Amino acid sequence: MQNQERLKRLSVSNKAIVQTQHVTFQGEVLLKSGARLDSVTVAYETYGALNAQKSNAILILHAFTGDAHAADYHEGAKDPGWWHDMIGPGKAFDTNKYFLVCTNVIGSCKGTTGPISIDPKTGKPFGLTFPVITIEDMVDVQKRFIDHLGIKKLLSCAGGSMGGMQAITWAVRYPQMIHSAVVIAACHRHTAQQIAFHEVGRQAVMADPDWKDGNYYGVGIPASGLSVARMLGHITYMSWTSMEQKFGRKLRDKEKLGYDFSKDFEVQSYLEYRGKSFVDRFDANSYLYLTKAMDYFDLAQGRKLSEVFKDVKADLLVISFTSDWLYPSSQSQEMVRALKANDADVSYVEIPSDYGHDSFLVEFEDQTRAISNYLLKVQKERVGKI
Amino acid sequence: MQNQERLKRLSVSNKAIVQTQHVTFQGEVLLKSGARLDSVTVAYETYGALNAQKSNAILILHAFTGDAHAADYHEGAKDPGWWHDMIGPGKAFDTNKYFLVCTNVIGSCKGTTGPISIDPKTGKPFGLTFPVITIEDMVDVQKRFIDHLGIKKLLSCAGGSMGGMQAITWAVRYPQMIHSAVVIAACHRHTAQQIAFHEVGRQAVMADPDWKDGNYYGVGIPASGLSVARMLGHITYMSWTSMEQKFGRKLRDKEKLGYDFSKDFEVQSYLEYRGKSFVDRFDANSYLYLTKAMDYFDLAQGRKLSEVFKDVKADLLVISFTSDWLYPSSQSQEMVRALKANDADVSYVEIPSDYGHDSFLVEFEDQTRAISNYLLKVQKERVGKI
Repeated sequence: MQNQERLKRLSVSNKAIVQTQHVTFQGEVLLKSGARLDSVTVAYETYGALNAQKSNAILILHAFTGDAHAADYHEGAKDPGWWHDMIGPGKAFDTNKYFLVCTNVIGSCKGTTGPISIDPKTGKPFGLTFPVITIEDMVDVQKRFIDHLGIKKLLSCAGGSMGGMQAITWAVRYPQMIHSAVVIAACHRHTAQQIAFHEVGRQAVMADPDWKDGNYYGVGIPASGLSVARMLGHITYMSWTSMEQKFGRKLRDKEKLGYDFSKDFEVQSYLEYRGKSFVDRFDANSYLYLTKAMDYFDLAQGRKLSEVFKDVKADLLVISFTSDWLYPSSQSQEMVRALKANDADVSYVEIPSDYGHDSFLVEFEDQTRAISNYLLKVQKERVGKI
Repeated sequence: MQNQERLKRLSVSNKAIVQTQHVTFQGEVLLKSGARLDSVTVAYETYGALNAQKSNAILILHAFTGDAHAADYHEGAKDPGWWHDMIGPGKAFDTNKYFLVCTNVIGSCKGTTGPISIDPKTGKPFGLTFPVITIEDMVDVQKRFIDHLGIKKLLSCAGGSMGGMQAITWAVRYPQMIHSAVVIAACHRHTAQQIAFHEVGRQAVMADPDWKDGNYYGVGIPASGLSVARMLGHITYMSWTSMEQKFGRKLRDKEKLGYDFSKDFEVQSYLEYRGKSFVDRFDANSYLYLTKAMDYFDLAQGRKLSEVFKDVKADLLVISFTSDWLYPSSQSQEMVRALKANDADVSYVEIPSDYGHDSFLVEFEDQTRAISNYLLKVQKERVGKI
């Protein structure tokens, strides 16, 4: 905790400003589904400096509703990027040592091409005419972006949740292009329960008459459906214990129960708040596309997982959290076993935490300790002095 | 399993027919909220025969969307009552020995007064003018019904999930009126996570424009909202493992993924089916009232649970299931500890099962073994020969 406090003070005193940048790649983008896009724009941010050998680059991979703004501050913004406590001078991803880059994934709504983007053929937003994307497609677009930077091999790629799915996919899909990967609170395939939670969220969105089969742009937004979907998401991101500790049965009006359908309990108004604020910052169609991408995620597709991992060259660090019941430790351990079966360089850390799946966005101290040492080791063993 | 098979064959050969009956109690019903109803109608069924001493009666308490039809067959029906495998000759609740009665709870939509009932003051369905009810109110109405049957003391009362909440409430609220209680897959209070799941379900219903603030009777039904709510419920009733075993990533069309928003996976169409069929059999307002009743459930209300249990006279059997993550074993164990602290007669059985919360509707063999012996013991120790 002391360490965490120190890091926080450090970040407040150095309020570094960053801007999201964009680059457009013209020329066909072939997706896993077989569909094609004529071009793709990628939103990205960078932190730290690329060395002359271009050997110190780490790709940061965001989760479901994240974006390219991983660290530092946008001009005038009160809050920093989503992994600010992990990225910066002296932090886990030390910007004094490494060049960090984070891109928004394809299909999202934060600057990279997605359903909210204008289809050049019609001059209107794609909406549901946007092709269904996969985790592999996200990684392919990132690969194109890394090529564009002239980087032959990443020192590492790292992310939690959907970001972790991308990290393990990098290791399988571009084994020669990464020295290491940090796979946090993730899995190698979505299970029935994971698909089921997403399906309920999608049905909530699509049941909203304001969704209009995805053609709501400029008319309105399916606010209540998307809000319900996000409320459910939040339950799965927390744990039984963190919900008990934060809310328990605390009442909003401490005097009494209302005996009506207003919100008696704090947990109800918290979920409402999280639902409503999500609607203001995320696109409902992107919600559908990204949940679908995760549901389609299955590296093995019927093969043995150890088969899938047989060409993995990278050193891997797999991290999970004890109270994460959405992507439980057992899924991380399954990956570790299959990597070990191939005699891959893999380390596994299970971090004790009550924060559930959200832990990767909260438990900075333990993650920092694990990751900073790991990156030094990889650098030493795989790259030599940089 | 052999035993279960035998029971099933037995029930098919004896297709006993039962009818739901109704009784109306005129005269004020005071609810926990302070609200009053002028009368209450109770739907009920009975199985077996009440002995002359009226000492062999067991009250069966249904779960959330259950009803008075606990066993046997309605005329012409293909499927029997919801706990048919537990109630009948030679079964856990042996109709050769005991007189079983099951009443539909107040607030439901299966014959007992609830939001769908006609308000005598207006001649229209109550809708949201129906007072908010609690688990205690359900038990109070049941007590009135048991009085009406002229039964001074129940041999037992038994139920799973919301039925278990009623059973433990009977033990606290009417300690002199029950010899025993069987509390299955239940709790003594709803936690933040349990409230949260219900809140998402309610918000899904209330977000449906067809809900019309509860005034949809005769106009339509909030089908899509209620369906989404039920889909979510089903995930919480199953376990990670039971969903994996039943569905995993099985595709509906075994050839390929659709790369669209149709239902690729079997788990998606299963949830859709469960959601849609629920809409045909359950009232959306009752969904709101009964989830709220459970959310309000908190026997201790700030006191020590052992304090709350200090007047419990009944012998208690508490049952939980290993894979039940909605009402986990820890909640049952909390009740057992607090009962033990009062030196109450309490037995606890944790049944190994992969079926999650649904186990109480599925794991008949283990429940039968535990309950049939328990009832014999209670009868012997507390009543003597019947």
